[in-house]
Amino acid sequence: MPVNKNELRISMSEHQKADRDIQGAGGGGTNGTYLSYDNPALTASSDTIHNFRSRNDSSYLGSNDFIVIDNTKKRNTFAETIKSALPWTQKKLRNSCTRKKLFRRLPILSWLPRYNSECAVGDIVAGITVGLTVIPQALAYSNIAGLSTVYGLYSSFLGPFVYIFLGSCKDVPVGPSAISALMTFQATAGYGPEHAILLSFLTGVVMLLMGLFGLGFLIDFVSGPVSSGFTSAVALIIVTSQVKDVLGIRASGNTFIETWKSLFSDIHNTRVWDAALGIVCIAVLLILRIVGTLKFKPKQGEEITSFKKLVNKFAWLIGTARNAILVIICGFIGYSFCLNGEPPFKLIGHVPQGLPSVKVPPFGFEKTVNGTTISYSFGQMVSNLGSGIIVVPLIGILENIAVCKAFANGKMVDSTQEFIAIGVSNIANSFVQGFPSTGSLSRSAVNNSSGVRTPLGGLYTCVLVILALLFFTPYFYYIPKATLAGIIIAAVIFMVEVKVVKPMWRSKKSDLVLGFATFIACLVLALEIGILVGIGINMLFILYHAARPKITVEKLVSKENNEYLMLTPDRCLIFPSVDYVRNLVTKHSLRQGIPVVIDCSHIYGADYTAATVIEILTQDFAARDQPLFFYNLKPSVCSVFEGLSPKDFFVFYNEDHIDQLLKERSYVKKEREILSA
Amino acid sequence: MPVNKNELRISMSEHQKADRDIQGAGGGGTNGTYLSYDNPALTASSDTIHNFRSRNDSSYLGSNDFIVIDNTKKRNTFAETIKSALPWTQKKLRNSCTRKKLFRRLPILSWLPRYNSECAVGDIVAGITVGLTVIPQALAYSNIAGLSTVYGLYSSFLGPFVYIFLGSCKDVPVGPSAISALMTFQATAGYGPEHAILLSFLTGVVMLLMGLFGLGFLIDFVSGPVSSGFTSAVALIIVTSQVKDVLGIRASGNTFIETWKSLFSDIHNTRVWDAALGIVCIAVLLILRIVGTLKFKPKQGEEITSFKKLVNKFAWLIGTARNAILVIICGFIGYSFCLNGEPPFKLIGHVPQGLPSVKVPPFGFEKTVNGTTISYSFGQMVSNLGSGIIVVPLIGILENIAVCKAFANGKMVDSTQEFIAIGVSNIANSFVQGFPSTGSLSRSAVNNSSGVRTPLGGLYTCVLVILALLFFTPYFYYIPKATLAGIIIAAVIFMVEVKVVKPMWRSKKSDLVLGFATFIACLVLALEIGILVGIGINMLFILYHAARPKITVEKLVSKENNEYLMLTPDRCLIFPSVDYVRNLVTKHSLRQGIPVVIDCSHIYGADYTAATVIEILTQDFAARDQPLFFYNLKPSVCSVFEGLSPKDFFVFYNEDHIDQLLKERSYVKKEREILSA
Repeated sequence: MPVNKNELRISMSEHQKADRDIQGAGGGGTNGTYLSYDNPALTASSDTIHNFRSRNDSSYLGSNDFIVIDNTKKRNTFAETIKSALPWTQKKLRNSCTRKKLFRRLPILSWLPRYNSECAVGDIVAGITVGLTVIPQALAYSNIAGLSTVYGLYSSFLGPFVYIFLGSCKDVPVGPSAISALMTFQATAGYGPEHAILLSFLTGVVMLLMGLFGLGFLIDFVSGPVSSGFTSAVALIIVTSQVKDVLGIRASGNTFIETWKSLFSDIHNTRVWDAALGIVCIAVLLILRIVGTLKFKPKQGEEITSFKKLVNKFAWLIGTARNAILVIICGFIGYSFCLNGEPPFKLIGHVPQGLPSVKVPPFGFEKTVNGTTISYSFGQMVSNLGSGIIVVPLIGILENIAVCKAFANGKMVDSTQEFIAIGVSNIANSFVQGFPSTGSLSRSAVNNSSGVRTPLGGLYTCVLVILALLFFTPYFYYIPKATLAGIIIAAVIFMVEVKVVKPMWRSKKSDLVLGFATFIACLVLALEIGILVGIGINMLFILYHAARPKITVEKLVSKENNEYLMLTPDRCLIFPSVDYVRNLVTKHSLRQGIPVVIDCSHIYGADYTAATVIEILTQDFAARDQPLFFYNLKPSVCSVFEGLSPKDFFVFYNEDHIDQLLKERSYVKKEREILSA
Repeated sequence: MPVNKNELRISMSEHQKADRDIQGAGGGGTNGTYLSYDNPALTASSDTIHNFRSRNDSSYLGSNDFIVIDNTKKRNTFAETIKSALPWTQKKLRNSCTRKKLFRRLPILSWLPRYNSECAVGDIVAGITVGLTVIPQALAYSNIAGLSTVYGLYSSFLGPFVYIFLGSCKDVPVGPSAISALMTFQATAGYGPEHAILLSFLTGVVMLLMGLFGLGFLIDFVSGPVSSGFTSAVALIIVTSQVKDVLGIRASGNTFIETWKSLFSDIHNTRVWDAALGIVCIAVLLILRIVGTLKFKPKQGEEITSFKKLVNKFAWLIGTARNAILVIICGFIGYSFCLNGEPPFKLIGHVPQGLPSVKVPPFGFEKTVNGTTISYSFGQMVSNLGSGIIVVPLIGILENIAVCKAFANGKMVDSTQEFIAIGVSNIANSFVQGFPSTGSLSRSAVNNSSGVRTPLGGLYTCVLVILALLFFTPYFYYIPKATLAGIIIAAVIFMVEVKVVKPMWRSKKSDLVLGFATFIACLVLALEIGILVGIGINMLFILYHAARPKITVEKLVSKENNEYLMLTPDRCLIFPSVDYVRNLVTKHSLRQGIPVVIDCSHIYGADYTAATVIEILTQDFAARDQPLFFYNLKPSVCSVFEGLSPKDFFVFYNEDHIDQLLKERSYVKKEREILSA
């Protein structure tokens, strides 16, 4: 078969490596290695020589766009390589401080010049809507984080402002989220707000460092099932933590099970009014949620009337602002009860008025408990926070990137920029006594459906929270605790990802097992341990994949009627799998006793351990005079194998050559037989 | 192109899964998924549909041996599957208690009936030679393990005896090895022989359990470079531990650096006689080692004379028994010095005579130190041994399997059987107060070159050690410590694997870095931590491999002159890589704006996370009316993707169909344009 250049695919990335590969392969001949390299493919600067498929009929000529025909590049000397590396380095350096880079790091520069009145309208509506959502959520999430109510508000206004300048995704509403609040609680449990504020600072620093050092890939190692299991567990834990406020009882506990035990032991003290209010709130919120999705549809062929349009708009508004509406109504109820004495349900109580003072986050502090002063050094605080310093930023950025991806619409998410934006937001937050915040998944939907156009929407959210802090905090006193608990429960129960069970079952059952394992681990152990368990199990899946390749075995007949065994491993040859592959190859080869060809089309990588085993394999075959050939070996893999200068190592790239190779080998064989006879 | 059955390769393992795959693929049509499944390949029960290579010319018709033509098997109902599973289970059960299994678990049954006088001669010579090697080594290795000299002998006689019955590899000489002695020292440091004996028992139990539960694959995760780095570090640490005996000074320290510091601080106390004797011993041993390899060669065309043959044999014997010879000579020197008063060098001193008493290993014991009795419970002992309980068996079996592989000659190593044999040997050893032992790498070469035929050689080793214990221990008193230290140093310096550096450099540079990292980690940290660091780094390599596939990009033109972009990822699509792949696909697709085909020939696996991303990808492409097709998707992977019922998910297996698919898509597109106009 004449080899057709068009069948050859060349990677668009031109690695210098490819040239070295070819040289390595060519040089192999001096080591007593026979290489039938007459495939023109190998003279091109390619690092992926592909197996030839059924494209050799002329109708499948590919374009020449990516075919490198420049053969002069074939053998670079070291000096030439260095020479060519210089301009490349210069270019890289230039690139790192270009206008493009600046625009990437300050996304506001891209959209601000094109800002118009249409954008402004969208951003104002969305910013205010998000503000109406974030204020009740902030009050509620402080409770999840185990902090006074006002800290939620402190965490909600600077983040969106910083994000205007640095944020790359218009839909991200930075602020406290249910997950970040719960993680904060678990990391700082019992240590009070100073630890939470320091955690916010450290979270920001870790995120920033991760962004700058390109560690964004770390979040790739959290798979869908692990993330679903984790989120679902978080939701259940949060619901559990709020049940006590709905029932008006006391309960404590660090894990899911402990908390439920504690709840059941105190359930006889349930306060009827709190419970009734809480349950009504949840019901109302769920109903309003449905109302928000209702829509009058125009009859076929008719235009929608403006009345119906108005009703649709109103329904959407009710649904979106349901938390704010409920808080206002319940606040009024609480207020009216207070006018007539003690209300029958618990209220959230005093919320300090005014903006937080701007101060450096507490790197060590003193606390007076029952007359004794305990001082905490920075080191002690860090050791109290423990693994939270790593896990809180990771989970935070995971949630944020999830928001970005959900609204990316096929565009790429610049995760490095998000690390920087959320990192700086958290550092800024820690100067105004905020706790760790991130791009909230629940508010992002509100933001998006309110028609946000740019991150400038955050400005209006910021202003609204500041107004609330300045003027409305006295009124927050009257909000019943059960209402806030109801808001949290009605929001987070939808985070229990029941809907992924069915597709996961149909798609990959082992992933469902993994998701459940993560879910259970997160409920039974601490959250951060739970997610690490999930990630660990998932990595074992990958390692198992690498360790146990599948090998296809077939008996083929060559052109000249020689029978041979074709063995095709389906993935790379690296250390955990090579012995397994060697055993399989040996087994099948011994059983059949005919020449063996190992088809390396799918082997995209190899290591030193593989090379040693291949060397032993060639020795074994040579010892029992059974021919062994390697077919379609990628030059990069070939050079790994040739590093050990194996004898009797035969590679071919054209199936026609099998007979030629066999002839040469059997000739040698016969000669040997004559000698020994 | 007419699809040719012979181009289709079918895996020899017939998974039921394949059928399900096909059903899943066929069923996809009901989910609005278009599948152009007219490839007859898919009607066969195959789980590896291969890309079609240049074998469609008739000369490359493979044999029909592995082609499954039975189409009736295509759709099994659940009941049928159960029905067919029954005989399979019965067969499995029958297999697990067959004669074959018995022969596998008691390898002596295979070779004893064929035992003849020739075998006996080989085994006697080898057994005695190994015995002469093991006695001085046993004395020396006790010192490495931090135990009295006699424990080495106690560990040396029962292992080879047990291995006669259970061992699957004739060349394995079970007994104390340098590595196992050092690991024992690190695990039991300071706790005395009771802990070492219990460790031997627990090592045996762990090995046995690993063998029975099929955990042998764990040692696959120790790659060549990690193993080389570890072994080299072990050698250096052992040399370091022996330098003090050569110099006759005192030194201590847990890590390599501590020990050297301690050595230098006491170096002024060097005893000249000890140092001189030690250095002479090392020199003599190295020279005798070379003598052992010297050989008179016959002149060309002449037969070798019987005198020269005798000289060759004698040289080999001198080389092989060099340790025993040196010990005897130095023992005599020590004895003659003792006749004239105190010798100028340290002697090993009293070695108890007689066989060890047979008793249950110490599951708890009491020890009187300076009048106070300290009692150790079993739990305390286990917690003192710590991770040694896992690491000692793993390293032990690693060394043993390395021996087996080194002399396998292309045969398969039954690692499960080795786990059992070495496990039982260690359990037996613990009843005669031995410390952990394994198949020694250094003595295996002696065994093999002495012409061992069966594991029965171990019998003579066993007898020799017993004779030594019964009659020769009084004479061991006179052996100088420096001689034993010299023996150890002269043996282990060859374990520093300098020779692998060059091939590793030429083969895979990252593996060299890994080897050095392991080496340094083992020297600086504890040995077991060091090897775990190496294994950890190596796993990161695998994870990185999985996370960052290479994608080949090319622009092709179809038969009907349609331009399209072909993207070919080179490995499986699983969670750490899917976002990366999605970003690359999106980038190239947006840049080119022509129909995109993802060639899935090399994708051998996928998971739920990949399926979700593929779904989003298809939605993105549908949203911007850019056609996206999947080519040559394996049915098993296809069914994973279809678990999510993605819309606009098009798969084709025949390149001719691209135009047809494009026509259908562009037709739809035009229709849409008319509608929206």
